[in-house]
Amino acid sequence: MNTTDNLTLHTDKYQINMMYAHWAQGSLNDKAVFELYFRKLPFANGYAAAAGLERVVHYIQNLKFGEAEINYLKEQEEGYKEGFLEELRNFRFTGHLYAVPEGTLVFPNVPLIRVEARVWEAQLIETALLNFINYQTLIMTKASRIKQVAPQDVLLEFGTRRAQEAEAAVWGARASYMAGFDATSNMRAGMMFGIPTKGTHAHAWVQGHDTEEEAFRKYAEVLPDQVTLLVDTYDTLKSGLPNAIRIATMLEKQGKRMNAIRLDSGDLAYLSKSARRMLDEAGFPYVKIVASNDLDENIIFNLKAQDAKIDVWGVGTQLITGGDQPALGGVYKLVAREKNGGYVPVIKISGNPEKVSNPGIKEVYRIINKETGKAEADYMTLPGEEDIKQGKRIKLFDPIHPYIHKYIEDYEAIPLLQPIFLEGKLVYALPELEQIRAYHKEQFELFWPEYLRKLNPEMYPVDLSTELWQLKMDLIQAHQA
Amino acid sequence: MNTTDNLTLHTDKYQINMMYAHWAQGSLNDKAVFELYFRKLPFANGYAAAAGLERVVHYIQNLKFGEAEINYLKEQEEGYKEGFLEELRNFRFTGHLYAVPEGTLVFPNVPLIRVEARVWEAQLIETALLNFINYQTLIMTKASRIKQVAPQDVLLEFGTRRAQEAEAAVWGARASYMAGFDATSNMRAGMMFGIPTKGTHAHAWVQGHDTEEEAFRKYAEVLPDQVTLLVDTYDTLKSGLPNAIRIATMLEKQGKRMNAIRLDSGDLAYLSKSARRMLDEAGFPYVKIVASNDLDENIIFNLKAQDAKIDVWGVGTQLITGGDQPALGGVYKLVAREKNGGYVPVIKISGNPEKVSNPGIKEVYRIINKETGKAEADYMTLPGEEDIKQGKRIKLFDPIHPYIHKYIEDYEAIPLLQPIFLEGKLVYALPELEQIRAYHKEQFELFWPEYLRKLNPEMYPVDLSTELWQLKMDLIQAHQA
Repeated sequence: MNTTDNLTLHTDKYQINMMYAHWAQGSLNDKAVFELYFRKLPFANGYAAAAGLERVVHYIQNLKFGEAEINYLKEQEEGYKEGFLEELRNFRFTGHLYAVPEGTLVFPNVPLIRVEARVWEAQLIETALLNFINYQTLIMTKASRIKQVAPQDVLLEFGTRRAQEAEAAVWGARASYMAGFDATSNMRAGMMFGIPTKGTHAHAWVQGHDTEEEAFRKYAEVLPDQVTLLVDTYDTLKSGLPNAIRIATMLEKQGKRMNAIRLDSGDLAYLSKSARRMLDEAGFPYVKIVASNDLDENIIFNLKAQDAKIDVWGVGTQLITGGDQPALGGVYKLVAREKNGGYVPVIKISGNPEKVSNPGIKEVYRIINKETGKAEADYMTLPGEEDIKQGKRIKLFDPIHPYIHKYIEDYEAIPLLQPIFLEGKLVYALPELEQIRAYHKEQFELFWPEYLRKLNPEMYPVDLSTELWQLKMDLIQAHQA
Repeated sequence: MNTTDNLTLHTDKYQINMMYAHWAQGSLNDKAVFELYFRKLPFANGYAAAAGLERVVHYIQNLKFGEAEINYLKEQEEGYKEGFLEELRNFRFTGHLYAVPEGTLVFPNVPLIRVEARVWEAQLIETALLNFINYQTLIMTKASRIKQVAPQDVLLEFGTRRAQEAEAAVWGARASYMAGFDATSNMRAGMMFGIPTKGTHAHAWVQGHDTEEEAFRKYAEVLPDQVTLLVDTYDTLKSGLPNAIRIATMLEKQGKRMNAIRLDSGDLAYLSKSARRMLDEAGFPYVKIVASNDLDENIIFNLKAQDAKIDVWGVGTQLITGGDQPALGGVYKLVAREKNGGYVPVIKISGNPEKVSNPGIKEVYRIINKETGKAEADYMTLPGEEDIKQGKRIKLFDPIHPYIHKYIEDYEAIPLLQPIFLEGKLVYALPELEQIRAYHKEQFELFWPEYLRKLNPEMYPVDLSTELWQLKMDLIQAHQA
């Protein structure tokens, strides 16, 4: 195995082959514009939470074909010519990249990233951008759903052992934290991103001593301020709880307070209520109850409906993998290409109407109704359109069913895409994680609750301007002619 | 962000806290034995294919707390003492690690890895071992299911853009290749592991030219020996196929043969049959048909049942994420611990019978019936048991329903666990990828087809020796007393 941290070849071979063909045909310097977006919300949720931009920025900054990469390309059956490899040695990203900031609530068909670059640069980065944005947006959205059902509780990300390899564990922990989780168990994520880390002991600690009580006591002696005892190694209510209460008593004598007990199996509704009663009756109302064991937003929602006495939720597998939906289907589509010194819009047709791409370089606005302060729709226009820039009356209509429409006059139009790289230079100050968390939290104020609810949300409108819609219709017709 | 490739902190905080408690209590040098296994097969499959060992070996070899890791630990609320951090500076893995070779067919409750080490070493590595083995075993098993439904076809792994971050893409590509896939689109996986890579062009290549025909021609001019044309950008049968046939004609005039067309949307049964007919009628029976678009083993199985004319399958999302099941629930449980200079077996009790662990250090054998050459069962014993070593008659019985039993006399007992590290030294020569592929393929010969079928397989027996079973019963009773 050749280990490598160079992610320049974190791409599909077809990108390299298209780059080669552009080089050979002399079109590598032609500009192209791509948009990255998803067509369908994950988890039947009403929104997604954009994530992955920090990863993208570091990736773009470090793009460089080293000699190992070049040598690998030399061996390929395609027989890439030396001139091409020589060009790759000088390769760097020199284009523009615009993106929606991390933490923004986003909706289908809205570009999360727009790349304007030499076609072969734009092509190389497609795979990595999709890989990063698809995963992190998926996990932040899942975490946001979990946060919604337990907004006042403490949420811990415990997924590393079930994450899909090492990078998913750390970037998934970060996505969860941005969505409002309080801490992660993953130490590397803590070190890389400054996320608070939490953890106490496993079943093995209990099994590793002659008695459960001895195990609890020895742990509490060493870390008296961080005592959360796992009580289900042998019998939660008959052994774990009574032993934990002995330790809480011991700690009180030292002027300390035990933090929590943890339930990791069995009926969490019944056990948490019984444990709460036992702890309260023993005089430890402050000892919290942590629960874990294949939790997700639906199980947490149901446990809370059953009045389970759980203060802290440790969420692992179902969060870090996406659980019921392990992939966001983000795509990266060419929308315009350089021709005769200008850009021409392009389209991808499909028998499936949702899969027809929106052509052209687009401005994307979030339309806020000034009267209510709430978002009415996202609205995409062609770059030259003046009405929206001047705050004039605009028509909002459903692009699939255009007869559904309304006009809006008193609005603010917030541009969603921010410049991140211009001519290859980073022009964006990556926000601190705490800023992203706060920004994400504020986002919810902008939307009516009907769009945000976990089950059967209303569909938030993502509209095209009349000009953009007409361009799309014209291009479809031209291709069918 | 602090980037780091050091995976020493690729672990949960509770491991560090238990290590700290062992250090503070003076028990860090006590030996402990852990087993890594899963309790339930993924995808309702009849077997899993073990994978992840190569990753584990590299991880163990590179375990080392650098100054960045130590400094991060210094900041923690636990207030780890300097003496502990000093011990960590000298930390390395000094224990034994046994494992089932990659590619082996494996079953629930059979240890894939056994670690015998100082307890704090064994504890630190738990999270990473689970993270690696869970993911790679999951994906190799998924890939193996896909291989089963299309054993004669070419299988391509196309999942990178939907993989859960960068590492999943490469290790998932490797797992797929070991299971019998023919190539990957991921260039980094190709470079790291020597897996063949494949890929041609995207919709963007077609959209990037004035006409589809021009796009096809320009591609074919540059890479005439690797021409696979994506025919669904505008209209598969009315535009894509006729243009592809023009290119095949052009190539024939140059004495070349077009490789394939690719279908990436629409009804693949109908389109592939129509495309085959059009290609054949035009005189290109050798041009293959590649299909992709959210394929999995069930869709491929159904397409083949409909007599779809597909020669090559590009499988992405559903393979690289596990699709319907994105996590294998592998666990890592303490089975024995040092006490008074010897090992004592330990158990984890649970109200859930399948979750009660099998205590003690175990030998694991695959029992091959010499008459049939087929595996009868996996069989776990305590280390001292002589009957099996001497090939004497043994009793096989179901550990949950012991009345179901039989005796076997004429057998070969193949030990499943191989020594990988002894006293921290690597003693295992990691096989070449091609060897693993071949070994995995041979594995199927050992099993009756009833265990291997995709739908409703028979459950392969994983049995305990009478002595081991009795030990388990005794320990349960002791804990309940």
